[in-house]
Amino acid sequence: MPIVVQKFGGTSVADAERIRNAAARALRTQAAGKHVVLVVSAMGHETDRLVDLARQVSPKPPRRELDMLLSTGEQVSIALVAMAIHEAGGSAISFTGGQVGMVTDSEHTRARIHSIDAERIEAALRDGQIAIVAGFQGIDAERNITTLGRGGSDTTAVALAAALQAETCEILTDVDGIYTTDPRIVEQARKLERISYDEMLEMASLGAGVMHGRAIELGKKYGVPIHVRSSFTDKPGTIIMAATPGMEEVAVQGATLKRGITRVTLAGLPNQPGITAAIFEEIARRGLFVDDIIQNVVLTGSHADHAERATLGFTVEGAEEHEIREAVEQLRSSFDLSDADVNPQLARVSVIGVGMRSHRGVAATMFQALAGARVNIENIATSEIVISVLVSTDDAETALRAVHEAFALGDAPAP
Amino acid sequence: MPIVVQKFGGTSVADAERIRNAAARALRTQAAGKHVVLVVSAMGHETDRLVDLARQVSPKPPRRELDMLLSTGEQVSIALVAMAIHEAGGSAISFTGGQVGMVTDSEHTRARIHSIDAERIEAALRDGQIAIVAGFQGIDAERNITTLGRGGSDTTAVALAAALQAETCEILTDVDGIYTTDPRIVEQARKLERISYDEMLEMASLGAGVMHGRAIELGKKYGVPIHVRSSFTDKPGTIIMAATPGMEEVAVQGATLKRGITRVTLAGLPNQPGITAAIFEEIARRGLFVDDIIQNVVLTGSHADHAERATLGFTVEGAEEHEIREAVEQLRSSFDLSDADVNPQLARVSVIGVGMRSHRGVAATMFQALAGARVNIENIATSEIVISVLVSTDDAETALRAVHEAFALGDAPAP
Repeated sequence: MPIVVQKFGGTSVADAERIRNAAARALRTQAAGKHVVLVVSAMGHETDRLVDLARQVSPKPPRRELDMLLSTGEQVSIALVAMAIHEAGGSAISFTGGQVGMVTDSEHTRARIHSIDAERIEAALRDGQIAIVAGFQGIDAERNITTLGRGGSDTTAVALAAALQAETCEILTDVDGIYTTDPRIVEQARKLERISYDEMLEMASLGAGVMHGRAIELGKKYGVPIHVRSSFTDKPGTIIMAATPGMEEVAVQGATLKRGITRVTLAGLPNQPGITAAIFEEIARRGLFVDDIIQNVVLTGSHADHAERATLGFTVEGAEEHEIREAVEQLRSSFDLSDADVNPQLARVSVIGVGMRSHRGVAATMFQALAGARVNIENIATSEIVISVLVSTDDAETALRAVHEAFALGDAPAP
Repeated sequence: MPIVVQKFGGTSVADAERIRNAAARALRTQAAGKHVVLVVSAMGHETDRLVDLARQVSPKPPRRELDMLLSTGEQVSIALVAMAIHEAGGSAISFTGGQVGMVTDSEHTRARIHSIDAERIEAALRDGQIAIVAGFQGIDAERNITTLGRGGSDTTAVALAAALQAETCEILTDVDGIYTTDPRIVEQARKLERISYDEMLEMASLGAGVMHGRAIELGKKYGVPIHVRSSFTDKPGTIIMAATPGMEEVAVQGATLKRGITRVTLAGLPNQPGITAAIFEEIARRGLFVDDIIQNVVLTGSHADHAERATLGFTVEGAEEHEIREAVEQLRSSFDLSDADVNPQLARVSVIGVGMRSHRGVAATMFQALAGARVNIENIATSEIVISVLVSTDDAETALRAVHEAFALGDAPAP
């Protein structure tokens, strides 16, 4: 019998009624002839409540103890979902990460999965039970409880689907699929029937927040089809899967917008070996995340005895402007820079599509669309399946709409 | 280095401040040259909150899943206490029941401990850490999470103290020790320095609610001294230990009062084999707890052809009067009884002392005291270290004071 893994996020098990709904969906899936494995997150704001308890005791708790604490959130959920399935007349058994041999490394609060011992789940399925597994958690070799960090429950679900050779891993959430772009900004945004792992990875890292990249990577590695769909309806969502010939006929699958990009330009760097490394080290030490390195131009001096000076540009994401300005001031004085510029009002608009590998003119179409919308391009970056432009935050939504329109992303694809 | 096990109940870890206090006490004990093992209950009303969550989902949840749910309460506490010790500059590590090999049978919600693998705790202690163990929980042979039922965390603590050969097991609670009787009723009640396991077992079963009998039995079995003391002060409490010659000089150690006793008298039972068993079966089937069987008198009929008829009296504890009356009505019609009487307004007053084995006149002193206080005795029951009388609830406090006074329990013992 085929196995389906269904993952319910925190909003989908936030109260008794939603827990009953999740139980009912699992039973319907079982009645349709599938073995069902559920992966469940902590209820609604339970993790926040636990983090707050920890903060009352310690501003910086040991990470092992934080994992001991936070892992209870999912344990509460699995027990309640199991009770709801029993109450609805079904048969279910809940398992902690440790009980299903979800063995990770010992990097508490951000552990990575080493192996899964699926035997106990398989035994439960053979008995006709629905197996319910706590998301987000595992154990290390010494049975210390670990957690997987951001996107953890999705990662648990995809890893289990891989280990059990499930036919699909459903991510049940509060949105009904992956859209060509953010429907809150572009009304014409269209739900995709399917998208490739590579495209979804880029969409996720470029701001489409439905799934964490880590779970998608795992799905790609083991070829697990991931079905992102609403927990509130039975309508199909979007299937994340390997690229197919049919998919490649479309050049561009989606467009994303990410705000909060700051561009830093440092001018007059002494052109010594290791200077760039030293600068990025200082930036990293301050907890700032460098995204793109934009330019690294060596300006040769007119006289042989003049030291050569370089200009370095890069973008920083998701940091407060004052943090960045402090860091830049520090760099200016430490490295004796001639000039340093901080431009904190930028956004990145990107188009993503595996198809652009074989289609010419994608970049030209994008730039024409932006020109037609009178959007100034501050910088351009490309990879094999992404073209990104930096624009001012004021122009960002206009730019996204223009690009979405230019690639006709709102139109249903040819059948 | 000697090992001390300290058990903190729910009120002693009810909030961040009390958790910090518990941490500080553990660190003081460690600084005094002890290895410290903490056993911690769920915070304040956490277990009630979890039970309520379960009820919202299922009125009668499977016991395995209830254990999965409830065991999170202690897991939260141990993580927070570990954080508090770190925050105070100490070193601590928390363990679930499963992580310290607290292996039980599979009787969910009332499991009994089979074995403890103390190796991991001992390793933590050798490293200079305070080991913090979740009370109330264990795992069965298949690593299913179990809970130990009522008095569970005390049982965990005493079992660990036995396994670790600890010098003492401290039960830190919201009272400061064991008293000769209930100080809310008898002002002269005196805190005992020490009491024997046997006396404490009787005190516990007769209404002194500080500790559950199960943990005391375990302490007796393995000879673990149990120190019941306040978590809010450093004053010594009461040590529960094996009887010593010195202790036996005191005839009576304490007196207890238990309300809510109902006496049932069934008259005119057909004197057939198995009739008493059938009656008690019916009583048990209704969830009523029979305490003492008071009398079982066979009345021989005056004519040989008359069937012999018997009278059966017993007490029922802690049940609603209407439940008992319903059961008795049922019994009267099922067994064709000539009469059935229910007396629901009784209380049991008892005196307890290992010393009464070798002292004469304890019963006489008790009856004289009650007679002097004009208290009518409804029934008398004795065991080797207990004399109990049933009195009307209205007379109960008068009776307790009279007995406490008659045995001079409020006076400090001779040094």
